[in-house]
Amino acid sequence: MTRQASPEPEVPQQAGKLLTQIAGYVGVRTIVIGLRLGLLEEIGKHQDGITTESLAQQLSLDPFYVGVWCRSAYAAEVLDLGEQERYRLAPHMDKLLLDVNFPGHIGGVPQVMVQPEFFEHFEEKLPSGDRLWWDQCSPDFITAVSDTGRPFYNRMIPGGLSKVPGLQQRLEEGASVLELACGAGNGLSAMARTYPNCSFEGVDGDAYSLSLTKERLAGEGLQDRITLTQSTLEDFDASGAYDMVLINISMHECRDIDKVTLNVHKALKPDGYFVISDFPFPASVEASRTVPARVMSGIQFFEALIGDQLMPTQAFVDLLNGHGFRDVEAFDITPVHAVTFGRK
Amino acid sequence: MTRQASPEPEVPQQAGKLLTQIAGYVGVRTIVIGLRLGLLEEIGKHQDGITTESLAQQLSLDPFYVGVWCRSAYAAEVLDLGEQERYRLAPHMDKLLLDVNFPGHIGGVPQVMVQPEFFEHFEEKLPSGDRLWWDQCSPDFITAVSDTGRPFYNRMIPGGLSKVPGLQQRLEEGASVLELACGAGNGLSAMARTYPNCSFEGVDGDAYSLSLTKERLAGEGLQDRITLTQSTLEDFDASGAYDMVLINISMHECRDIDKVTLNVHKALKPDGYFVISDFPFPASVEASRTVPARVMSGIQFFEALIGDQLMPTQAFVDLLNGHGFRDVEAFDITPVHAVTFGRK
Repeated sequence: MTRQASPEPEVPQQAGKLLTQIAGYVGVRTIVIGLRLGLLEEIGKHQDGITTESLAQQLSLDPFYVGVWCRSAYAAEVLDLGEQERYRLAPHMDKLLLDVNFPGHIGGVPQVMVQPEFFEHFEEKLPSGDRLWWDQCSPDFITAVSDTGRPFYNRMIPGGLSKVPGLQQRLEEGASVLELACGAGNGLSAMARTYPNCSFEGVDGDAYSLSLTKERLAGEGLQDRITLTQSTLEDFDASGAYDMVLINISMHECRDIDKVTLNVHKALKPDGYFVISDFPFPASVEASRTVPARVMSGIQFFEALIGDQLMPTQAFVDLLNGHGFRDVEAFDITPVHAVTFGRK
Repeated sequence: MTRQASPEPEVPQQAGKLLTQIAGYVGVRTIVIGLRLGLLEEIGKHQDGITTESLAQQLSLDPFYVGVWCRSAYAAEVLDLGEQERYRLAPHMDKLLLDVNFPGHIGGVPQVMVQPEFFEHFEEKLPSGDRLWWDQCSPDFITAVSDTGRPFYNRMIPGGLSKVPGLQQRLEEGASVLELACGAGNGLSAMARTYPNCSFEGVDGDAYSLSLTKERLAGEGLQDRITLTQSTLEDFDASGAYDMVLINISMHECRDIDKVTLNVHKALKPDGYFVISDFPFPASVEASRTVPARVMSGIQFFEALIGDQLMPTQAFVDLLNGHGFRDVEAFDITPVHAVTFGRK
């Protein structure tokens, strides 16, 4: 066969791109079944591996079906196979899929994406353009979303924050910290334990989330060091009060991002830090074909449903520069997690 | 950081494997939305591309949501981007995703895999080991499955059959052909049109499928050349009657595969051909990490639900050799389609 020099990809190459994505789909569904039914957790208990029969017995599951699942999980490189047909977790899968406190935890993402709130609801609302709100989401979905937010905190505290020049020292010596959109208090709790000399304030628009946070912080004996305030970020008003303002994966959700940035600027002490922890969505369509960008393109489906979109890091940089912050910089912690910061 | 020489993959590498699969999941969901809502079909009509606004208008869909979908479809390499922000189909995606008559058509696979009959039902029945039967599947699912079977016929007739030494000539000169598990008649119809000198018999266990086939063949004026018989493959009984027996993606579903092979051997004329067209599932767990094997590992979930499993090509080769066929050989047409054949 003579092959013409041509930039046009051929059929098998294009088919391969589709098949690779279908293989990924299969892997994700396999992982989610493994997480939901405790298969991965059980396998993780057996360092030397476990046969499909023993696994089925341990979990009271059908052995034939468990065998089919194990083979697909092996194909997805989530399991390895040892002697005597014993499956064990592939390296680091315990941390990546099972340990919600591991900074690189990924297990929450597949669990969120298979929920109907993601692609099914999007498809349903494509004609009308109707939005979805959190109160129409299932408790399972909200829990899953919250789990995907936790690694962002675990990467920031103390790792990400320590990379902001001068900030670590200030937090160690004792500082007044405001967290915007503090949600269920994962960040406040982690920061209060990591920075014992600091005092904290958490602001969130959702009364229910704040009630959960209050209960949680009381349980951890942290209530005296943390104030909670119910307010939208647009209405929050303070002056010269904080050494640092942190907002974690919520800046892209602001209804009026300029107003919020103005509020933060006003709320900071002179030299105070504004730290934005968020997704780094590519600035151009052309940059969307990397693996992290493709994952984030999927997250955009749900963001769209709630009327938001992930933003490029450069947009945060421009925002801070445009509102008089100085020393504005940004860096990536992981391919799906960027930090932008500036000083008043 | 000192890096030890070690075969153990590191965390970012393992995380990358998971993210790549999540990106694939997003791509599949994006493709399915594009197929179901006619987005891909509409884009395919515009050789010079179409803007998201025009696309939304053409299909009466929300322009913001359409923009989110387009960007994800671009990320999945299903769309390309031209001048003036016009999206067009990436090379060959018209054939691969939209043309059910294209031998390499893949568009049916994502549509089957997102149905609840695949992974949701499997997860639900993992504890009990209960099976599913076709009468519990939705009409949408059955249609989608039928669409995924069609490319197998389109690759076989005449391409795959022509690669079996001596068979093409016999079919052109005129032969008596039996198709086992003929289903809705896609294969009989295609063969009757391709090989005008042949006569055909179709056997299937399902009366409803046969009634569809009968109607279809009458509509195509082919009824005089094709006989239909309702029988399980295990009960079918004929002697020395056929030049070729074909079975397409159903051999792995036989309840008693030895009995069926015996029946075929008996039914063939001396020198007659038995041709098995099926998936080439890897013989070993270790061989399951290729892209096609990962796709097939996903198909195994549904196969398991109906009490079947895809089989390795070698198992078909051994089966034919074990039942006295001669000149047994096998070849792959695509990475997910293999042909095994032998002569009486």
